[in-house]
Amino acid sequence: MNDEARPMRADARRNRARVLEAAEAILARDGLSASMRAVADHAGVGLGTIYRQFPNREALYLAVIGERMRRLYAEARELLDADDPGAAFFGFFTRVVEVSTRKKALADVLADAGIDPKAGIGEQVDADMPRVIEELLIRAQRVGAVRADLAMPELRALLSAVSMAAERQQWDEQLRTRTLGMLFDGLRAHH
Amino acid sequence: MNDEARPMRADARRNRARVLEAAEAILARDGLSASMRAVADHAGVGLGTIYRQFPNREALYLAVIGERMRRLYAEARELLDADDPGAAFFGFFTRVVEVSTRKKALADVLADAGIDPKAGIGEQVDADMPRVIEELLIRAQRVGAVRADLAMPELRALLSAVSMAAERQQWDEQLRTRTLGMLFDGLRAHH
Repeated sequence: MNDEARPMRADARRNRARVLEAAEAILARDGLSASMRAVADHAGVGLGTIYRQFPNREALYLAVIGERMRRLYAEARELLDADDPGAAFFGFFTRVVEVSTRKKALADVLADAGIDPKAGIGEQVDADMPRVIEELLIRAQRVGAVRADLAMPELRALLSAVSMAAERQQWDEQLRTRTLGMLFDGLRAHH
Repeated sequence: MNDEARPMRADARRNRARVLEAAEAILARDGLSASMRAVADHAGVGLGTIYRQFPNREALYLAVIGERMRRLYAEARELLDADDPGAAFFGFFTRVVEVSTRKKALADVLADAGIDPKAGIGEQVDADMPRVIEELLIRAQRVGAVRADLAMPELRALLSAVSMAAERQQWDEQLRTRTLGMLFDGLRAHH
């Protein structure tokens, strides 16, 4: 039985990834009116396959948010090896705000259903992200791109402040760029 | 009848102001366990006088938030005449964040009762505040204390971002000072 179970699980994983990718595409196209049927068609799987993994719309949205966070975490880890630690730090800060802005519609649906959007974030990502962010900060400070007196409490405070507002107020790209530009000027090492 | 009504209204206004002042004192002392009885005793009025103006705890809290905003607005208007427009601008920004931080407990009670805390803010204050903030900004820019390319959309975005986070995460004074210090460095005119 174990021998049979293994390929099944790999199949299920592949299907799950395809469904999540399709859900992103359909959500970008149709917004919250995206149907499970459209997601299934786009993924090339049957509706039953989707419902086996995601019993309802909320479960799918939760998984989409979780997958975005997993990708963001993977990006952060890759940026630890970037040639320009300053650009890596400010680039990642910007990415976090971008992802937050896109999260609102899904988070609202989940909140209406009484589900905490954070429930979709994997334990490892949730626990490890602050450590990776701190490493991005330290590397940027080491090359003199970020002021040495910026510590994690302020960084977290600013990062969550801007993410929260960008999500709630749906900042467009121009407002995000201009606002973060001024904030980043305050975090650079020329003070 | 009109002649009689006028002094009555003045009386009611005075009582209202005394009750709100007492509510602030008792809330600072007892937190959310503050009783209407304690507020009445502190204000030196009967419990009936309070309930005539504020039929329940939520109505009183709403009025407390409204009164704080009215005072903040009065402060902003006074700061328009300050000798140091840079200090006035950054000082007012800091005050907004302070007031937001203190608002959380009351706002939570109101939200639980399905009441928008903003409902307590007077129309004039709500409509006029952005204009006064813009004037503080322009004055600070004119003396070279704030960068010339900071416009109202970014200022509002940053002000609400920091206020929101300070309220939700209950920033202590040290975190507020350090975080705003870095943000203000980005808004100064040396860029």
